[in-house]
Amino acid sequence: MIKKTKRLTLVEQVAIQMEDLIEAGQWEVGSKIPAEPELMEKFDVSRNTLREAIRALVHAGLLETRQGIGTTVKSASTLGLALEKKIQKSDLMETLEVRLALEKEAAKLAAERRTMEDLNIIEECLTKCKEAATNKDSDYFINMDIEFHKSVVRATHNQMFIELYDHITDALQNSVHENMRARRQLEDEYAVHTDLYEAIRVQDGHAAVSCVDAYLRKAKDSLYTMMEGSN
Amino acid sequence: MIKKTKRLTLVEQVAIQMEDLIEAGQWEVGSKIPAEPELMEKFDVSRNTLREAIRALVHAGLLETRQGIGTTVKSASTLGLALEKKIQKSDLMETLEVRLALEKEAAKLAAERRTMEDLNIIEECLTKCKEAATNKDSDYFINMDIEFHKSVVRATHNQMFIELYDHITDALQNSVHENMRARRQLEDEYAVHTDLYEAIRVQDGHAAVSCVDAYLRKAKDSLYTMMEGSN
Repeated sequence: MIKKTKRLTLVEQVAIQMEDLIEAGQWEVGSKIPAEPELMEKFDVSRNTLREAIRALVHAGLLETRQGIGTTVKSASTLGLALEKKIQKSDLMETLEVRLALEKEAAKLAAERRTMEDLNIIEECLTKCKEAATNKDSDYFINMDIEFHKSVVRATHNQMFIELYDHITDALQNSVHENMRARRQLEDEYAVHTDLYEAIRVQDGHAAVSCVDAYLRKAKDSLYTMMEGSN
Repeated sequence: MIKKTKRLTLVEQVAIQMEDLIEAGQWEVGSKIPAEPELMEKFDVSRNTLREAIRALVHAGLLETRQGIGTTVKSASTLGLALEKKIQKSDLMETLEVRLALEKEAAKLAAERRTMEDLNIIEECLTKCKEAATNKDSDYFINMDIEFHKSVVRATHNQMFIELYDHITDALQNSVHENMRARRQLEDEYAVHTDLYEAIRVQDGHAAVSCVDAYLRKAKDSLYTMMEGSN
């Protein structure tokens, strides 16, 4: 692919290269980045240039510099950060509607494209949801519930879809209040998941969309009820 | 709203304040930002701190500094930039699928929620599409086509939806090759738009979704044909 030529400053060039290393996972989230002398040699730049590039990535939210600890990777994706920031400023119901839009089409595509391997992973998540519902373990249920939905979206085999859905789901999760989680009806939710799994198993895209419609209508209703209750 | 307390450096604080001014539109895209002495006074910081904050926003893609011109606002949204970068690296078909997901749900919500004012704007865009199709003016048609779809999404009255859809559409537009544009069948497309407008007018959400399904299936088919043709 031929890229447009742009005149970039040295700082820019170094920042972009570091960003690529982070987004590719070569510099892992939570880990320390290599020491200054090593990076100065790697990128063939001065200490000042290197430090300025690091500060740009700190501002972007990808790196974090703490006194006495050094510089660590804080996040792997500028898209994830931008979405998280947007969602924090947005109305919860609006974000849910966007998630619904993605989830519906994903259910349809998953039904059409799922491999046997996808199906096994979805089933595994479903089994864990069932266990959690039986044991009334709502924390475990919530985590496995998210895994279930993500595994459905993964069966679309569309990377753009997967990334957008994952980021929106994670950001939503971070902004949902503990109270709301506690009041979820685990058995009810598990039952709708089973229907969705079945629709994907028999590759019925239409039925899959109906399942998503059903459980998201429910989620919206209970959100409205909670909001009224808290007023 | 109580925000989490975080220890921010001065540079960070200034960068965040400038970002807010840009995202709120107080510093408009394309315009020059105020002069250094004014900004140093406004934020009560030194020249070095100010310059470093500006460089952080240049790296983020929000500002642009050019020799002899000064610093201008390049983009108003980190989310838009992050999506654009992601879409540039992604498969075109995958991005189209994501757009389809948003567009389908948007058509349904628009049918349910459109005001008379929304309807007038959508109709206006439709009339302009018709003019362009009649005059075989494909550049004008493409622009009015985008306006038509954006006006439908605006009728959802969901800001998160609107912003995400606008960014994805603009980024897609920037990455679609000229050749593909030239081969579009204007009359065909105009006819499907009329159907969608009609569904929104009579507030039939189900019919609105079917219209989107129909025209996006067509778009995908012709994209596949073009890709085969170019191999």
